[in-house]
Formats: sequence, structure tokens, C-alpha cells
Amino acid sequence: MPLRDALRQIQPLDWLLVAIPFAVALRFVPAWHNDTALFFVAGLSVIPLAGWMGRATEHLAARSGPGIGGLLNATFGNAAELIIALIALSEGLIGVVKASITGSIIGNILLVLGAAMVAGGVKYQHQTFSRTVARVSSTSLSLAAIGLIIPTVFHLAADQQPGGWSPQAEQQLSAAVAAILLATYVLSLVFSLITHRDLFGGGEATHEHEGPLWSVGTATAVLAVATTLVAVMSEFLVGSIEAARAGLGFTEVFVGVIVVAIIGNAAEHSTAITVAMKNQMDLSLGIAVGSSLQIALFVTPVLIFASYLFGRPMNLEFTLPEVAAVALSVWIVAGISGDGECNWLEGVQLLSVYLIIAVLFFFLPEMPHNPEAALPAAATSH
Amino acid sequence: MPLRDALRQIQPLDWLLVAIPFAVALRFVPAWHNDTALFFVAGLSVIPLAGWMGRATEHLAARSGPGIGGLLNATFGNAAELIIALIALSEGLIGVVKASITGSIIGNILLVLGAAMVAGGVKYQHQTFSRTVARVSSTSLSLAAIGLIIPTVFHLAADQQPGGWSPQAEQQLSAAVAAILLATYVLSLVFSLITHRDLFGGGEATHEHEGPLWSVGTATAVLAVATTLVAVMSEFLVGSIEAARAGLGFTEVFVGVIVVAIIGNAAEHSTAITVAMKNQMDLSLGIAVGSSLQIALFVTPVLIFASYLFGRPMNLEFTLPEVAAVALSVWIVAGISGDGECNWLEGVQLLSVYLIIAVLFFFLPEMPHNPEAALPAAATSH
Amino acid sequence: MPLRDALRQIQPLDWLLVAIPFAVALRFVPAWHNDTALFFVAGLSVIPLAGWMGRATEHLAARSGPGIGGLLNATFGNAAELIIALIALSEGLIGVVKASITGSIIGNILLVLGAAMVAGGVKYQHQTFSRTVARVSSTSLSLAAIGLIIPTVFHLAADQQPGGWSPQAEQQLSAAVAAILLATYVLSLVFSLITHRDLFGGGEATHEHEGPLWSVGTATAVLAVATTLVAVMSEFLVGSIEAARAGLGFTEVFVGVIVVAIIGNAAEHSTAITVAMKNQMDLSLGIAVGSSLQIALFVTPVLIFASYLFGRPMNLEFTLPEVAAVALSVWIVAGISGDGECNWLEGVQLLSVYLIIAVLFFFLPEMPHNPEAALPAAATSH
Repeated sequence: MPLRDALRQIQPLDWLLVAIPFAVALRFVPAWHNDTALFFVAGLSVIPLAGWMGRATEHLAARSGPGIGGLLNATFGNAAELIIALIALSEGLIGVVKASITGSIIGNILLVLGAAMVAGGVKYQHQTFSRTVARVSSTSLSLAAIGLIIPTVFHLAADQQPGGWSPQAEQQLSAAVAAILLATYVLSLVFSLITHRDLFGGGEATHEHEGPLWSVGTATAVLAVATTLVAVMSEFLVGSIEAARAGLGFTEVFVGVIVVAIIGNAAEHSTAITVAMKNQMDLSLGIAVGSSLQIALFVTPVLIFASYLFGRPMNLEFTLPEVAAVALSVWIVAGISGDGECNWLEGVQLLSVYLIIAVLFFFLPEMPHNPEAALPAAATSH
Repeated sequence: MPLRDALRQIQPLDWLLVAIPFAVALRFVPAWHNDTALFFVAGLSVIPLAGWMGRATEHLAARSGPGIGGLLNATFGNAAELIIALIALSEGLIGVVKASITGSIIGNILLVLGAAMVAGGVKYQHQTFSRTVARVSSTSLSLAAIGLIIPTVFHLAADQQPGGWSPQAEQQLSAAVAAILLATYVLSLVFSLITHRDLFGGGEATHEHEGPLWSVGTATAVLAVATTLVAVMSEFLVGSIEAARAGLGFTEVFVGVIVVAIIGNAAEHSTAITVAMKNQMDLSLGIAVGSSLQIALFVTPVLIFASYLFGRPMNLEFTLPEVAAVALSVWIVAGISGDGECNWLEGVQLLSVYLIIAVLFFFLPEMPHNPEAALPAAATSH
Repeated sequence: MPLRDALRQIQPLDWLLVAIPFAVALRFVPAWHNDTALFFVAGLSVIPLAGWMGRATEHLAARSGPGIGGLLNATFGNAAELIIALIALSEGLIGVVKASITGSIIGNILLVLGAAMVAGGVKYQHQTFSRTVARVSSTSLSLAAIGLIIPTVFHLAADQQPGGWSPQAEQQLSAAVAAILLATYVLSLVFSLITHRDLFGGGEATHEHEGPLWSVGTATAVLAVATTLVAVMSEFLVGSIEAARAGLGFTEVFVGVIVVAIIGNAAEHSTAITVAMKNQMDLSLGIAVGSSLQIALFVTPVLIFASYLFGRPMNLEFTLPEVAAVALSVWIVAGISGDGECNWLEGVQLLSVYLIIAVLFFFLPEMPHNPEAALPAAATSH
């Protein structure tokens, strides 16, 4: 199958790279100025760029041996999301950042994994994967969900005492929880890359190296160029988000949870489905759940700490619908993945939960999301 | 054992058919008029009639081959509950309808399944059932619970913004969620009746055909007569519900969750216990969980859509205790059924949860349940 | 290894017995009076005394045969916690009692079990335990969590109707739920000691009898002396708790959930870790989870009923953070223990959840905890 191999070299989403010049034109040619178009075009351009960042990281990883390589994958795997979020954070769009964290977590485990299970399930009656890995992953997901639930519980409970809740206390609590989540993430890397590496079978490293391995120089250069372009496109994306969502009539939270999250996860989406159709469900699950975990346990704490640098500290308090969406998603994924096998109906069930949550965010009115504003339930009732 | 076989032909609950003339007398003889008595007598009469509807459906199903037959079972299996709910809906008793949906869901998975596990567990040390089927079922249950949780989350969250919540938005959200649930139900029938039919072993079809198979004509006639009688008795039941619950001092929600649900599920109850004692736990679980799923994913969406015909649209927003009851029940059932085996203590645990929930509903004061009224938690606090 | 055996006779925590005379001096020598010091010294002295009560109970149990012996272990296993709680209850410290119930439940399943899994996991790649026992235990934990969630759901829901919530209704509901939990506990003893005794392999009875068995007289005398000393030390502990927590700047709930719970569970802690390092994870899990269950399903109902004797009935309504902490802990433990194997990362994950919850309680302001005071969320909003 040399023809098939050759075709595979052209990554299916690379034609989206043509969006880059369009985005530049929409941004800088006054006559073409259109924020809604810029938002979508910049968003589309991030998809193939994120793919190139991912491939460069993997080639670097393959050159570095399994330990350092795994670390590279684990830290740069969601670099595009991290860059978008950092730029949004620097412009004070805390609500969008939190919404896109929520969206990335649920998007990966519901939409990406659901689509992968359906795509694999129409070809194979049953697909299997390592139960131990699935268990460890869903426990990590539960831990991440708990880390997101607790700051909201704190607000709800502290707020019952007059003067009991303060943004300072919420911020300190958030920083402490973020530190615990990050420490657990580091330890889970020790687990998967060192002490229990055999369980993971070098998973992530094996799915891409069909062509020759790039040199360290090439890989570094590709990574640098792609990262720069992602940063520029993210700048465009974030700069146009406000006007675009107003033009489309979407709320901030819907844009963050659904739109930004779909853009940020398109690369995972495409890969997870492709490998599921090759009956490599271990890898598919690893990509989808691993990406959610990286967002929750690595990107989110990093954003919390980075927000101090911008002088506008972000806390870990999410809105009630966001907390509910994450908790319910983790609950259903744990149930589905716990037995080490899946079928197309389980994929449909994940997609159904995603749709129900999308409907919820679609109908939600615009909500305050900054730390000063009172938040869920009883919080506003005094 | 020809004697035992002969005795089994007389369905154990058929003597309850004598309730029908009593109900007619209580309704139409002025001197005998007593709403509380009518409520119970009409309720009792539904039990054997639901059994006859079920048997007629199964004979029709057996005549139709597995595909159409499974579809018949899946759509008519809870026809009695559907009829009661439609009549209650036409009289505007939305609170009772929602409460009886809640009660049917938790009644089947806690009371019916718990009693079946105890009944089977006193005879057998351990009983086993298909883990894959149990997993798929509990994921469907989780999905149903999520479908019931989200509209309440919507109300809680939207209500924090002045003017953020409206009955229209809640209704549209509910209709969208109902459509998703119904679509998932249809796909789960495709799964169990077509693509993965071997897993389910024709389960439901095998447990009743001990006598000769009825002709299509006989079965259709029995179904028509039983359905008509159920409709008449439901009319009596619903008509007397208000006076009966006032007389007994019960709240609307207690009557719906506990009383109506026990009446509506008596047939499932009796069959699930009988087959559990014959060590057919797969069938027992299929009846109990399958009935809950049918209520949540088929009957409930149908009621939402039917409510438009009556000019009084019902939404999917349940009260906080109802949402909590369903979510906690699904949680514990998923834990118990996930390993494919059960014992009497697990039955006791399910019954304990049922009792705790019954105590909760017993002590709850009467609550507003119509879409206009503000609902749980912070909703009422402005 | 006779030297090692001899060393093992000296229980590692027995040197803490020197705290007893110090506690007496701090309490009765006026010049030494210092409530904070007394609180900690009395607390430390309870640790080895609880160990001696446990050992005396086990020797008595071994003399009584498995049935009565199991019953002795099941009722006296948490006698120290029960004594502390009864004394606190008699002084009206209902908030501390509820907080220490919460702390004991989560402390055992998160801190004790987490530390045991880490200690065992650094020596063994994977450790295994009976999946059936783990399942039954986590279902019991879920049931206990439901028993604690429902009274809070009742308050939240009933409070929406003006006059819908009353301390009397909450008390009756709590007593009913407590009776159901206690009945389930008794039935779970029937299960583990009688009908399914083989599953549990006489677990608890085997881990201590390395020396000769004590006579019934010796064991009874040791039990009597240790119990008396625990009662005296608990009196000191409870008497100094208010001044100590004010001096340290901790809230009542933090002292109850974290400090008292660590003191009360030190014996379980030490034993569960020791046996985990000997790769006896069944026993380790049995100690940690069994102790949580005993607190939730036996000690808590007994305290509810005992509170009537003190004329200040305690209900089962916990604060929102307490309910969330228990529910989330049970959720993650069920996920971790459901597959019958564990590793060090799962231990780390349990410890992380414990830390996150400790952070929550550390930042929480002082909250009202008596039945008259309005409680979580919307409860305070009228």
C-alpha cells in the first residue's frame, strides 16, 4: 500500500492552513474587516497548526527516549489551548477561559471519545482496552472534577455567613487546590512514564512515526514556527471573540464551552477517531481522556498561577452549570470505561450527554463570571 | 410437576380483577361514594389489567418475530403507566405526573430489583448476570438521570440573572432534552434488537410462553379490552386522587412517588421476583431496569410531546428531592450491578435506599410543581 | 527473626501513654493550666488507649468464636470515637460531633486507605483484594452517604415553602433514617459473620495474635481500664476543645473534621499501613473501610438515639461542605476499589482528595450547626 502511505503523509486537516492568510487579510485589510469571519477563520487555522505542534513534539519526544519524550508530550500536548487561554487571560476574559477549560474537559471525554467509540463500533462489535489504565484515568478525572467542585462548594457555604466569603479566601483556596492538582499530575507522570510504564505500552509514542524521524533541529524549528503562528492566530481569535459572539447572539459561556473547545480539540478529535477505526481503542482512549486530564490537572493550574503575572488572579470557581457538566461527564465516562470494553451504543450515549449539555449552555443567559460577582445558587440571594 | 404448571396458569394477581366492579359501584352508586376507597380499588384493579396487557403484548410479540416483537414489548411494556399519566396530564395534574415518573424510575430499580435480589439471594449464595448488559443499562440510567438533572440546573443557574429564567426557555430546553433522550432510546433498541441481539438472548421473550401461544386475533382482542379497562380505571384513579390524598393527609408528591408508582409497577414487581427465585437474574434485572429505562427514555419524552396536545405543555424540570432521589438511586444501582453478580445484602441495600427516599417524601411539605412557580433552592429567594 | 518478633510486642504507639500523667497535670495543676496543650496531650493519650481497647476486644473476640467475636469487633471497634462523641454530645457540642463523624468517615477512606495504598504500593507493583468484598463495602458507603445527603436535601426543599421546614420534622426524619441505617448495619453483620462468612475469611481476627491469647479475665480487665482512661481523657479533650480552637484560630468544623478525626483514627491508621506493607490489602481495606462504615452506620445512629437521653436531640443534617466531602470521598473510593487491585498512584489520588477537602475546611468560616439555625444554601435566604 505505498499509495495509501503516501496519501497519509498529507495530513487530512492541512488544507486548513490556507485559513492563515485569510485571517491576516481579515485582520489588517480595513475593507475586509469582519470580526465574526475573523473569529472562525482564525479558529480554523489553529486546527492544523495544533496538529503540526503535536507532530513536532512527538518527533522531539521520539528523539529523547521514553522518559523525557513522555514528559514533552504531557506538557506540550495541549500547548495550543494553553496559548489561547493565556492570551484570553491577559485580556481579562476570565469567563471565556473558564468556559473553554470546561469545554475542553467535557469535549474530549464526551464528543471526542463518543465519536471514536461510534466510529470504531460500527466496524467492530466490541472493542477492548486496558481496564487498569481506564480505571486510573477515570480516578484522575474524578479527582479533577473534585478540584473544580470544591471551590464552588466553598463559595456556596461560606456565603451563608455574612462576610464569610471573600475573593481573597476563594483565591487562596484556589491556589492551594491548583497546587495539589499539579502535584498529582506530576506524580501520575511518574506512574505512567517510570514506575508503571509497561501498563501504558509507550502508547502515545507509537501512532505517528510512519515516515522518517525528523532531526532535533527540524522538529524544533517546526515547533517554533507553529507555536508562533498559533500565538498570532490566537491573538486574532481572542480579539474577535467579543464582537463575534455578540454578532452571532451566543453567550460568552456557550462560545467558550462549545465553540472554542471544538476548535482547540480538533486535532485530538481527528486522531482519536482514526485510531479507533483501526481498533486501537487503548490509544484512542489515551488521547481523549489524556487530553482532558492534561487540561484539568496541568493547563488549569498553570493558568491559575500565570494569572498572577497578569495582575488579574483567576480562581478555580466555576459556575454551577460548568461544575454540573464536568461532574456528570466524568460520572458517565467512569461508568462506560470501567469494564475495559466499549461498543457503538456507549459512544452514542456519550454524544447524547454532550448534546444535552450543549443544549443547556445554549439556553443559559449571559452570566457573570468574575471573582467579585456573586455566583451560583444562594450566593446571589442576600 | 403438572400440578404446579396448572396452578401457574392462574396468574397470582388475577383475583384482583374483582376490584373492577367494586370500582364501578364506588364511582356510580351515589350512596357508596368514597373517593379514598375508589382511589385504592381503582388502583388495585389496574394491577391485573396491566398484567393482561403485558401478556397480550408478549403473545403478539412472539407471533411477530424478535425484531417487531422486541419493539412491541419496548413500547407497550409500560402502557398502563402511560395511560394513567396521559389522563392525569389532560386534567392538569402535572405535579402528580412528574412525581409518578420519579416514583416509577426509582421504584423499579430500588424496590422491584431490591426485592428480587433478596428473594433470589435467600435461595442462592450468589447470583450472576451479564456484566455487559448491566453496564449498558446503568449507563442508560445515568443518561436518563442527567436528562432529569439538567433542566433543574438550568432553572437554578438561569434564575440568578434577573429575567434570566423563563417558562418558555425551560420548555424549549425540555423539549430538546426529551428529543435527545427519545433518540437514544430508539438507538438502544437498535442495539438490543439488531446489532447486539445475541447479548440479550431474546431475554424478555422467553419467560412467559408456558401455555400455548395465543392467536394474533385473541391477543389483539385481549389487548384492546385490557387497555380500555385500564383507561376507565385510570380515569377513576386520577379523578379520585385529589380527594383521596387530602383525606389521607398525604402530599401530592408522596402519592405520586410512592403510591401511584407501586400500583403501576406491581406487575413488574411480581414477575421480577418470580424469575429471581428461579435464578434467572438476567431476566429479573432486564425487567426491573428495562422498565425504569422505558419510563425515563420513552414514556417521559412521549408525555412531554403529548402535553402540547392538551394545551398545557409539561417541562422536564423536577423538584430537588425528585432529582436527588433519581440521581442517588442510579448511583447505587450502577455500583451494585456493575460486577455482574449480586447477593441478598445488595438487595437489602437497595431496599434501604428506597425506604430512606420514601421517608424523605413522606415528610416533605406540599410543594408547587407547575412551570410558572419558582422552584428549588435559590429559585425562590429573590 | 526473634529480635524482630520481640520488638513487635512493644506496640509502636505505646510510648504515647506517657501523655496520660501530663494530661492530668495540665488539667489539675493550676500553674500549668493551658487548654491548647491539654487538648493535644489528651488527644495523644487517646491514641495508644484506643489501641489497647482494640487489642482487648480482639482477644475477647478470639476467645468467643467467630460469630460473637465478629460482633464484638463490630460494636467496640470504634468505642473511643463513640466515647469522645458521647461526652461532646452531653456538653451540647453538636457541631463538633457532626464534624468529627464527617472527619472519621473521610479520614478512614481517604487518609488511612490512601496512606496504606502508598505504603504498600512502593513495595509492590500491584496489590489485590477481594472485589466482591470491596463492592459490598462501597455500596454500604454509598448507602451511608445517601443517609447523610437526604436530611440536607429535606431542609433545602422543605425550606422553600414558608413554614415547610421545622426542627421537629427534621428530627423525625433523622431518627427514621438512623433506624434504617442501623438495621442495614445489623443485616450486613449477618452477611459478613453468618451467611457469607467465607468471603471475609475471618479477616479481622487474624492480624494480631502473634503473642499468646489473653484470658477472658485479663482481656476484660484491660478493656475496662482502657475504656475508663479513654473516658477521662475524652472529658479533658472535649473540655479544652473550645479554648484550644479559639487559641489556634481554627474553626469548630476544622477541628472536628481534621484534628479530632486524625486522633480518633490513629490506631486504624497505624495498623492499616502495617498490614498493607505485608501485602495484606484485604485486611488493610477491611480496617479502613470497615471503620468508616462502623462510624456511619453504627456510631452515628447510636449517637442520634443517645442524644435524646441528653435532652438535646441531634439530627442527621450536616452542612453542605460535610455532605459534599462525604459524597465525593465515597465516589472516588468506589471507583478505586471496584476492580480489586490498587497501586501507589491510587493512594496518592486518595490523599490528594483528602488534602483538597482539608483545604476547604481550613478556609471555611465558622458556621452555625445547631438544628434551630438555618442551614445550607437557600436555607438562609428568606
